[in-house]
Amino acid sequence: MRWARYRVEGAVTYGVVEGEPGAEQVEDVRGDPFSGHDRTGRRHRLGDVKLLAPVIPRTFYAAGLNYVEHVKEQAASRGQAPSFPPEADIGYRANNALIGPDEPIVIPRDASDEVEYEAELVVVIGREAKHLSQADALSCVLGYTIGNDVSERTWQRNDRTLWRAKNTDTFKPMGPWIETDVDLDAMRTRVRLNGEQTIEFATNHMLFGIAHYLSRMSRYLTLFPGDVVWMGTEGKSPRIHDGDVLEIEITGIGVQRNPIVCER
Amino acid sequence: MRWARYRVEGAVTYGVVEGEPGAEQVEDVRGDPFSGHDRTGRRHRLGDVKLLAPVIPRTFYAAGLNYVEHVKEQAASRGQAPSFPPEADIGYRANNALIGPDEPIVIPRDASDEVEYEAELVVVIGREAKHLSQADALSCVLGYTIGNDVSERTWQRNDRTLWRAKNTDTFKPMGPWIETDVDLDAMRTRVRLNGEQTIEFATNHMLFGIAHYLSRMSRYLTLFPGDVVWMGTEGKSPRIHDGDVLEIEITGIGVQRNPIVCER
Repeated sequence: MRWARYRVEGAVTYGVVEGEPGAEQVEDVRGDPFSGHDRTGRRHRLGDVKLLAPVIPRTFYAAGLNYVEHVKEQAASRGQAPSFPPEADIGYRANNALIGPDEPIVIPRDASDEVEYEAELVVVIGREAKHLSQADALSCVLGYTIGNDVSERTWQRNDRTLWRAKNTDTFKPMGPWIETDVDLDAMRTRVRLNGEQTIEFATNHMLFGIAHYLSRMSRYLTLFPGDVVWMGTEGKSPRIHDGDVLEIEITGIGVQRNPIVCER
Repeated sequence: MRWARYRVEGAVTYGVVEGEPGAEQVEDVRGDPFSGHDRTGRRHRLGDVKLLAPVIPRTFYAAGLNYVEHVKEQAASRGQAPSFPPEADIGYRANNALIGPDEPIVIPRDASDEVEYEAELVVVIGREAKHLSQADALSCVLGYTIGNDVSERTWQRNDRTLWRAKNTDTFKPMGPWIETDVDLDAMRTRVRLNGEQTIEFATNHMLFGIAHYLSRMSRYLTLFPGDVVWMGTEGKSPRIHDGDVLEIEITGIGVQRNPIVCER
């Protein structure tokens, strides 16, 4: 089942996406996927609604370094030996930075040339949970979507926090929808920059898996419906520039597409 | 004007606090302080409602190191020379950790003995804002409340992020209400642990002032109604233990009080 959040006829609503790729429809619901819903029978062509980030989370979690080659690349770019995280210590991103499908990623005027994308699997929490065992951890998950952890690398290296490096407005595209039925081990993440594939990797090939993260997090914190956990990216992420178009595909979910523009 | 958020007769509502200390009443409103409200004339004694954290922010910002003596104390505790932040780089905290007045701060079973409080002024944003000049920055502020940035110092030193050190459930008490009329330069922060004063400092004597922070933040990010910015603490914060009661007073706002218990 695919949950989308969208603006249609001036209102924001959740709906269910159905139909073949290229001919999808959405059916509005009353309510939402977290606290209950009724289907309304009111349908729109997907192209006739404005898709939004599929959820504004209560807390926006991000794993950061969670794939082998990405840890090596990030270390190499600093002239350092790779240092693998010893534990699944979760990090954070900020809601101001969220945008939805097809919205532009806007690079600030004073950013350096070193702005890069990071293609990530996003876990969407469906129910309140604490003290989850690893075996039971995925039971709190509603579904999965796609995130792009856009990063300005000079700010990331030099600021005291990740605030503008990763949380500048528009630096967190998320979408296109939440897919509830996935085969994690079969999923592939593919990125296309201006139509050309830059990377493909096994989505679930993480240093610390989803169940491990959720179990460890929930030892200390309560997960709430609508919380999101971004699971990190793999490999080297090329720079993005004014006029580029980026597509992140995760098989079994869909494609999150955003153009890149520079602030004028 | 004092805005409180509370549970009364099974529902959560905003209301206006009026009356002398010890004899306050709250009057329910329809709506909220951010998007508009009407007073209802329905009043309760303050003691008859359950005060909650006065807002659940869209984004939860925290300045971290922002007072001279606190920077020195934190460096000394690590055997290092003090390193003052060169720029007002904002950090983040997490909504799961928020609690309201009189709710217990619960120290996890596996925490060390090094759990400390940090008394902080909290800025509550009232309207959407970007690209604020320093001169205009305070115009987006609705009011001020009190926060306690509870911290487990061994996790803070050793984990890759601040996740459980500062964002364990109950580690972010906030309240008791939002005061819209303050004289920032006259405010004093006083902390009492089990009735005994541990510190008093000039609340507004910060390394980077509120207007400076908001102006710099809003160069890159949009501030939204209900966002909160915790402004940091001064001095050395003694440890807190099972059975303690902590009171943080900021003159002109009020007192935020919480008991401390250990997880059984």
